Amino acid sequence: MHNPFVPETLEGWSALHLMYRIDWGRLGQVYPGERHQMAEEFAGVFAGTVASATEGGNALVQMLGHKGDLMAIAFRRSFDELGRTQLALSRCKLQAYLTLTTSYVSIVELGMYDMTAKIHRQLAEGGLTHGSDAFVTAFDEEMERQRQRVTGRLFGEIPHRRYVCFYPMDKRRGETHNWYAVEFERRAEMMVEHGKVGREYAGRVTQVISGSIGFDDWEWGVDLFADDPVTFKKLIYEMRFDEASAKYAEFGPFYTGLQFAPGELRKLLEGELPSLT
Amino acid sequence: MHNPFVPETLEGWSALHLMYRIDWGRLGQVYPGERHQMAEEFAGVFAGTVASATEGGNALVQMLGHKGDLMAIAFRRSFDELGRTQLALSRCKLQAYLTLTTSYVSIVELGMYDMTAKIHRQLAEGGLTHGSDAFVTAFDEEMERQRQRVTGRLFGEIPHRRYVCFYPMDKRRGETHNWYAVEFERRAEMMVEHGKVGREYAGRVTQVISGSIGFDDWEWGVDLFADDPVTFKKLIYEMRFDEASAKYAEFGPFYTGLQFAPGELRKLLEGELPSLT
Amino acid sequence: MHNPFVPETLEGWSALHLMYRIDWGRLGQVYPGERHQMAEEFAGVFAGTVASATEGGNALVQMLGHKGDLMAIAFRRSFDELGRTQLALSRCKLQAYLTLTTSYVSIVELGMYDMTAKIHRQLAEGGLTHGSDAFVTAFDEEMERQRQRVTGRLFGEIPHRRYVCFYPMDKRRGETHNWYAVEFERRAEMMVEHGKVGREYAGRVTQVISGSIGFDDWEWGVDLFADDPVTFKKLIYEMRFDEASAKYAEFGPFYTGLQFAPGELRKLLEGELPSLT
Amino acid sequence: MHNPFVPETLEGWSALHLMYRIDWGRLGQVYPGERHQMAEEFAGVFAGTVASATEGGNALVQMLGHKGDLMAIAFRRSFDELGRTQLALSRCKLQAYLTLTTSYVSIVELGMYDMTAKIHRQLAEGGLTHGSDAFVTAFDEEMERQRQRVTGRLFGEIPHRRYVCFYPMDKRRGETHNWYAVEFERRAEMMVEHGKVGREYAGRVTQVISGSIGFDDWEWGVDLFADDPVTFKKLIYEMRFDEASAKYAEFGPFYTGLQFAPGELRKLLEGELPSLT
Amino acid sequence: MHNPFVPETLEGWSALHLMYRIDWGRLGQVYPGERHQMAEEFAGVFAGTVASATEGGNALVQMLGHKGDLMAIAFRRSFDELGRTQLALSRCKLQAYLTLTTSYVSIVELGMYDMTAKIHRQLAEGGLTHGSDAFVTAFDEEMERQRQRVTGRLFGEIPHRRYVCFYPMDKRRGETHNWYAVEFERRAEMMVEHGKVGREYAGRVTQVISGSIGFDDWEWGVDLFADDPVTFKKLIYEMRFDEASAKYAEFGPFYTGLQFAPGELRKLLEGELPSLT
Repeated sequence: MHNPFVPETLEGWSALHLMYRIDWGRLGQVYPGERHQMAEEFAGVFAGTVASATEGGNALVQMLGHKGDLMAIAFRRSFDELGRTQLALSRCKLQAYLTLTTSYVSIVELGMYDMTAKIHRQLAEGGLTHGSDAFVTAFDEEMERQRQRVTGRLFGEIPHRRYVCFYPMDKRRGETHNWYAVEFERRAEMMVEHGKVGREYAGRVTQVISGSIGFDDWEWGVDLFADDPVTFKKLIYEMRFDEASAKYAEFGPFYTGLQFAPGELRKLLEGELPSLT
Repeated sequence: MHNPFVPETLEGWSALHLMYRIDWGRLGQVYPGERHQMAEEFAGVFAGTVASATEGGNALVQMLGHKGDLMAIAFRRSFDELGRTQLALSRCKLQAYLTLTTSYVSIVELGMYDMTAKIHRQLAEGGLTHGSDAFVTAFDEEMERQRQRVTGRLFGEIPHRRYVCFYPMDKRRGETHNWYAVEFERRAEMMVEHGKVGREYAGRVTQVISGSIGFDDWEWGVDLFADDPVTFKKLIYEMRFDEASAKYAEFGPFYTGLQFAPGELRKLLEGELPSLT
Repeated sequence: MHNPFVPETLEGWSALHLMYRIDWGRLGQVYPGERHQMAEEFAGVFAGTVASATEGGNALVQMLGHKGDLMAIAFRRSFDELGRTQLALSRCKLQAYLTLTTSYVSIVELGMYDMTAKIHRQLAEGGLTHGSDAFVTAFDEEMERQRQRVTGRLFGEIPHRRYVCFYPMDKRRGETHNWYAVEFERRAEMMVEHGKVGREYAGRVTQVISGSIGFDDWEWGVDLFADDPVTFKKLIYEMRFDEASAKYAEFGPFYTGLQFAPGELRKLLEGELPSLT
Repeated sequence: MHNPFVPETLEGWSALHLMYRIDWGRLGQVYPGERHQMAEEFAGVFAGTVASATEGGNALVQMLGHKGDLMAIAFRRSFDELGRTQLALSRCKLQAYLTLTTSYVSIVELGMYDMTAKIHRQLAEGGLTHGSDAFVTAFDEEMERQRQRVTGRLFGEIPHRRYVCFYPMDKRRGETHNWYAVEFERRAEMMVEHGKVGREYAGRVTQVISGSIGFDDWEWGVDLFADDPVTFKKLIYEMRFDEASAKYAEFGPFYTGLQFAPGELRKLLEGELPSLT
Repeated sequence: MHNPFVPETLEGWSALHLMYRIDWGRLGQVYPGERHQMAEEFAGVFAGTVASATEGGNALVQMLGHKGDLMAIAFRRSFDELGRTQLALSRCKLQAYLTLTTSYVSIVELGMYDMTAKIHRQLAEGGLTHGSDAFVTAFDEEMERQRQRVTGRLFGEIPHRRYVCFYPMDKRRGETHNWYAVEFERRAEMMVEHGKVGREYAGRVTQVISGSIGFDDWEWGVDLFADDPVTFKKLIYEMRFDEASAKYAEFGPFYTGLQFAPGELRKLLEGELPSLT
């Protein structure tokens, strides 16, 4: 534990992204009343899988393009709750008109590069020998303090903003540029630099990072929420020039869409633009 | 903001490319009159999603090959309008005979490499300190002037030319050749060189570049329109030898087809070549 | 124009390869007479899309393996004629039992590496300044002469040979070996060497190269026709050792099959081997 | 045999992972009683393919995300028994509502890097000439002793823990970093280092490695079982920094889910979370 | 011809591998008697496509995992006979329950690295000038002698062993390690080394190499047959460390299964393990 080359991470919500394609041809042959009922059932069942805001969060997103028509985002207390949610949605009547085209399984995560470094430094300055029992105890106490401090970010609400951008990413393990073979300090510096770009966009974009090593095909998932989609383009383009991204980031597919209020799902099925409020 | 390594961009139309495959086998079993009606509905609904030419533009393209039979291109004022358009098409009766095989989500963009450099230089020569409030104000004013100047290109009409070529592309982030790790000046020079090749083909090809970082799986989408498809081959082949492309471009799939007037969609469904006028 | 690093190309037929999979299970449930009719219709419609041998050429190929059962190759005067052909086939009754699994869009092309070099040299020796009006005129005249000379290859018949091999390819743009960053003279030399291998197989293989930059996902398509399939293996294996291929070629999927006379399509649908004559 | 560059391996269970997607739309239209029956049949048939715990082991996993809804893991004495199991499941009535989306074929394996090195050393110290008959006999005897010693790990039970993570992996054969071109001693050292990280997580994660060279598309399959899914993330993230992984590991897709008791399959089909006990 | 850098090859059977997935859900709804009939028809038609053992060979393999349920291997005298066989199978009634998921087209091949080198040497020592008419004649005579000598391997029976492993492979053409840019002598040496590993496994594995350059997406297909599947893993793992494989081999997907007697196909369809004898 406390491998000095491995940054500590703090974990929050278990997260599941489900992207569905709608079979519009067949759905169009259903009576409007039945479509309405199916929309209500789906939205209701989804809402019902979260007992309260402290137990999780839900979002529905109208996707643009062919990758899907509807994305359901679920933040929960555990993988069991994610499993329960996916099963509940799977048994909805609307499911006969849905195909689950892709998905993402992850856990909301805060990577603690600077914190890890700082704690190590502080503890070392306090005269603790790295790896000693006293060190480990002090370290764990400090980490717990940090966890308390950032609990709002680990278990926060899904941002209530119109535009959503989701993509998974890796840190490159190329034959020349290999993030995992770079010194901890160098990585920490690059992450600081990377964070600076993010902070410039603070009010305009809300970001949720989740870790997916061991759960899905990429190392991290990134959810961005904004009131103007151009912000996504500006932010990610600018970041692409910082060293952490330019040299070490590998990006997966991007999913874009418009968040809407669950009660508006019936509008979507009727071909009308659902709104967020 | 105004990161000197990041070229400024100006944004125009939100753009959606939808590529559909037609189920010819099943469509052939439909009464001609019904096919006719479905064509009229689809073309009418598509047209109806644009209130006026200042609100957007539409194009329909008969695609060659197996990637799709029909491509619908929509330029709109916002992602909401793109969402509204996709939903409206999804509810058309013809949809029962269509499969959305692929798509592209982007925003029309002008990359301002030379402009960014020039403004930085002019402002510096004017004695403004980079990053100062005065600098930022002057910069923003100058950018706004540029935006006014090129508004016709940011919000232009979809070129009314017979042949269409669409492809997405990236700037390479290889382990040796990495566009995002190249000096701004070097990149600017290469873009100038690249632009020169484009200008040789000025009258013969009309090009629309859109940015898709944060929206889709590649960084840019390129739409070319011409009166002779050989021009696409000549232009892109020649460009492939300039440094910006030779060393730094990664190309996605290419989609090729023949633009036609929406009123001709019914001909397409009858197996007759639809024409542009 | 006349970029000295870019080899001139001459263009011939517009070309479309359509690979179809047959739904044998469902087709087997159709009355033999109806199958017969569908075969005749498909073959007849395909033939009908070419007014005369000067307007294009057609070939049907029984494919081996799972990539398809039937490949239709169409050479035409224009993309409009390709579009007309694809649409006509799409409306055939047989289409209800076909899936278009893949395709290729290209234009028959002769790359003029040696010619480009020779003309440049001759013109230079004639004292013409590169890029001058006189140079451009002389160049264009010479290219036109070449076009006349090779018109038979640009607009030739589809070779009437039993075995067909089609594959797309690229010239590599690797980070170390990048064809588009190699000097023109070096590239010309390698193409000469490459051509020599091809010429050894002259009588045994007939080759048609088509360019697809701007039209499809690879830069070139290669069609080989022979009386013995082993020839394909020997030729391509030997070529793989010449520098142009060894270092700079990237190969796409290979499609192999047996050409047959269109009138034999009904045999294919009955599960009998169709013959070429 | 006994190639000094090739680590010995010991083999245990033949292993088959089958990932199924459930057609929820169609399954929802079935009478609950029939669904119940199908669940019982499937669970019963699966159980019936293992005569006793010495003949193999079974696990059922509810998967998260779109890669599948149900994973069946079978450990058996032979490939014939795997074949028998797959066939038996294929004939279950539930199969009409399942699609086998992916799978993995492998054999439980212990890579004996340290053992191979030690034996070689001991034998050499004992004065035996490498490759001599006496050497081979002594080596084989020692290997057999090892096999006896680890037989519990080669033919162990599938861990009875709630969370399951499965992924395939390769050792990289890059142009710069090529595991198979590294000296045996260097590889052995890295594997020791790699093992140390694993041992830190001893009680929290149970790991089963299986070899799939010659059987499936990756070289190894890794099954992890834990009581808390965060452990997977922490373990694999930490490992990613050790040299064997950082430089030489290539990871395939990750499959994550919740193990449940076979008798709970009927709950899953009703959309209720099945439990492990 | 006789390019000294290109090893000669000798060709035998034309080979076709067809991998089918069975639609178990629908097949289960068929009357057992009809299933029985379909199995008999399929096995009978397949057998009927080979007039005698000198005309070809057939094998049926029960596949493990999701890549297919049934693999049919056909060795024939020509591509026409392969085409005839595929068509005959395509028209079987069972086809309505099969999907051809993948396939491989190749020609059994012996690569004559050592032979090519030896002949060149012998002829040179005999005082013949490379490339002279006398050289060519002597070379061709020698090659013909070799062909006679190995005819049993070029046109051998499909090994009657229980376990089958099939995979395609390429020789790497990387930017650093490029097989096709390596000196002939170096390649010959590596192939000798590679062959040595193979010979250690002589009695335990029977190998058939087929060439697929020009026919399919990889350069070679490898079929291995053994009485114990662990042998595949041991052999291929050990080979992975020899230079020819470690540095220069690229492997495609692996297909594994159990060969069975055609008369046992009906058992497979009933969900019972078919046996080889």
